Amino acid sequence: MKWDEKLSGSVQHNNSLLCVGLDTDAEKIPGFLKAKKHPVLVFNKAVIEATKDLVCAYKLNLAFYEVLGAEGSLVLEQTIAAIPHDVFIILDGKRNDIGNTAKKYAQALFDMYKADAVTVNAYLGKDGIAPFLEYKEKCSFILCRTSNPSAGELQDLQIGSTPLYQVVARKISEWNTNLNCGAVVGATYPEELRLVRKILGNHVPILIPGVGKQGGDVEKTIRYGTNSQGEMALVNSSREILFASSGEDFASAARNKAAGLRDMMNTYR
Amino acid sequence: MKWDEKLSGSVQHNNSLLCVGLDTDAEKIPGFLKAKKHPVLVFNKAVIEATKDLVCAYKLNLAFYEVLGAEGSLVLEQTIAAIPHDVFIILDGKRNDIGNTAKKYAQALFDMYKADAVTVNAYLGKDGIAPFLEYKEKCSFILCRTSNPSAGELQDLQIGSTPLYQVVARKISEWNTNLNCGAVVGATYPEELRLVRKILGNHVPILIPGVGKQGGDVEKTIRYGTNSQGEMALVNSSREILFASSGEDFASAARNKAAGLRDMMNTYR
Repeated sequence: MKWDEKLSGSVQHNNSLLCVGLDTDAEKIPGFLKAKKHPVLVFNKAVIEATKDLVCAYKLNLAFYEVLGAEGSLVLEQTIAAIPHDVFIILDGKRNDIGNTAKKYAQALFDMYKADAVTVNAYLGKDGIAPFLEYKEKCSFILCRTSNPSAGELQDLQIGSTPLYQVVARKISEWNTNLNCGAVVGATYPEELRLVRKILGNHVPILIPGVGKQGGDVEKTIRYGTNSQGEMALVNSSREILFASSGEDFASAARNKAAGLRDMMNTYR
Repeated sequence: MKWDEKLSGSVQHNNSLLCVGLDTDAEKIPGFLKAKKHPVLVFNKAVIEATKDLVCAYKLNLAFYEVLGAEGSLVLEQTIAAIPHDVFIILDGKRNDIGNTAKKYAQALFDMYKADAVTVNAYLGKDGIAPFLEYKEKCSFILCRTSNPSAGELQDLQIGSTPLYQVVARKISEWNTNLNCGAVVGATYPEELRLVRKILGNHVPILIPGVGKQGGDVEKTIRYGTNSQGEMALVNSSREILFASSGEDFASAARNKAAGLRDMMNTYR
């Protein structure tokens, strides 16, 4: 199944644009889990079980698994296996390298871990991205405008009268010959999000981190990030949902937070 | 020991600016190794044993280990353990993320795998790099001008009259308050290398991939990449050395190729 069918299926089935970020910091999970074997996996499975009917996607940031060493690879694999087959899976690694090396990253993320989508960084230009785009059934979200405070330091540099992040947005349209490019734009920059959606048109998905702990506004995120059908935006929240409670009720607290966020998003669609 | 002491120690001890890239593609190693347990590890150990007196550094590109899953983490760890304590170790992952996540990557690469240096991508600006730079004893090589054919697609964009890669070089100087920044510049772009060395001055190391298979010129690489003392350049070759022979003599063939390259580099210092 091509990525866009799977994504629109999960968006419609769960009536949701919410992407839950399984950025599971092993140091922050509830203390009582830490004595268990593979505590991050136990935590992830509980969060997935509690939220799987509320989300369009899960996004796993690879840093939180890489830091676990060999166990991280196993936890990543088994977390992915615990996600229902009809929910979209994004592996967020922001990978970038020259062609023959980028191909290995693409194999790791798409073939081995079975991601539906990945995030990539375009600083190397088209040939560093191409090995990902060759997976025509999969989607590659290209960093455009990131959510962090110093995002503008390079991304706002003016090329003529166009900031770099908009040049990247135009490149994304140009590179999108297989209809499998997406963009990453932070919710913390709503005006930039509006301009990127305008450049990308209706058919390119935007992955939008930065609501929740980072402070992005939900209403503007939905109004500016979605296309004219109120779709093609995946709004990610991680810490706010994962660590809604540090007690034994962490999963139900995550569910409550996720449900509230999904419903709030839907009021603005 | 601070990174620059260790690096200048290995440069002087082995009289070498050669960095061997252990970008070990499991599909390309000699066939007779494939029946062994952990063939990539066996291969790496043999290459290290055959070249360890000829190099200033080894660079391990993480893509080739990530694609091996949990085994990759073990192979990475044990390859690093097989490198002599006085040889510089670079983990090449080109990682980039927002602050709290970049911190996890830094922990993984510096604390867990014990790298002396890493490569990072600066598209997110200072705060995505800062968690790496906080490791004051370690070095972070920031992508500046990459070696691939489409490098210029973004990196040559003109900011006023300055191309982006030179803006990044200036940022590297600005961010270098802990004296632990390096730059990555491809040997395939000698004029750009010359200009970046000029911007960075004498004390910032440049990691230079792209000689060998990618076609970078060794003479220009050394003349333009080193500082006024003929140091602070790490010239990486991977495939040309690793896969010099596909037979049982692969390690001695790697040694011959590495020795030739080191000696050629030294004639131009």
